[in-house]
Amino acid sequence: MENSTDHAEQVVDDLSAFKLAFRRLAAGVSAVTARDPDGRPVGFTATSLASLAAVPPLATFNMARVSSAWRAIEQTDHVIIHMLGSRNRRVAEIMAGDHDHRFDGDHWAPGPLGLPVLKDVPAWMLGRIVGRYPVHENAVIVVQIEDGSLGDTDEALLYHERTFLRPGDPA
Amino acid sequence: MENSTDHAEQVVDDLSAFKLAFRRLAAGVSAVTARDPDGRPVGFTATSLASLAAVPPLATFNMARVSSAWRAIEQTDHVIIHMLGSRNRRVAEIMAGDHDHRFDGDHWAPGPLGLPVLKDVPAWMLGRIVGRYPVHENAVIVVQIEDGSLGDTDEALLYHERTFLRPGDPA
Repeated sequence: MENSTDHAEQVVDDLSAFKLAFRRLAAGVSAVTARDPDGRPVGFTATSLASLAAVPPLATFNMARVSSAWRAIEQTDHVIIHMLGSRNRRVAEIMAGDHDHRFDGDHWAPGPLGLPVLKDVPAWMLGRIVGRYPVHENAVIVVQIEDGSLGDTDEALLYHERTFLRPGDPA
Repeated sequence: MENSTDHAEQVVDDLSAFKLAFRRLAAGVSAVTARDPDGRPVGFTATSLASLAAVPPLATFNMARVSSAWRAIEQTDHVIIHMLGSRNRRVAEIMAGDHDHRFDGDHWAPGPLGLPVLKDVPAWMLGRIVGRYPVHENAVIVVQIEDGSLGDTDEALLYHERTFLRPGDPA
């Protein structure tokens, strides 16, 4: 049988390996916005946005249920998902910063269903939440895309090794 | 009421917008391997791998339930998740190619629990499947990381605009 010291070491080792491994995976950067039950805009920068299916158009993102936006995501039917480009780096930082000030300024405007749409992004989509799967203190959210708009093209915005990057040369 | 032509157009528009929008999101490239119930190695290249939590270490990936690997993922308890680097571009192509030939060659070896481990990757992790959430013809898979190994560092491998890329300059 494991003793508690061994177990604690194992947990630390797993966590360390996990963090180091995920640091080696680059991610595209997106931002999710919604309205909370009182109508206030909420949002966050996400590196977990992924396509789930094309027909019907489905996507997923992950979030902590202790995050400032969880109450909104838990109760609303719709979100806006934004694909961020390298020109949106400042917006990515704002939407990952102090949650009381993420909508201070003119970097957004009300869009479909009154939801906050971030300006000047390469693409945004209106998503209807069709699944919320709690796992420990977190949740996987599944959305079905119902509408969207393409903006001016841009280099994608990446997050890798704790830095915002542009795409580089062919591998 | 919508007539069927309008509805068909709307579906096409949604699909088109969805595909164009997701093309503007860059993704890190990973590969997932497992054993099917007959012990045969299965695997696939994934662009949906995302961290869900650090404590406990949880990750998610998405797949089609019509894919060649679904039977294995549906029935096995464990998978290996590999973070691919730019030196693994060929392996990424093999693991996205003809599923009868993905394990032809010496680019892998049996690892923990006999699972196929791809060689010379920047990082791999042993994941225990703790959730399978079917959504239409697809599924979100949640794994808890139980073990792992770091290899030589490398530039991350990206997939964007249908091309494998390296990370570039700061945004």
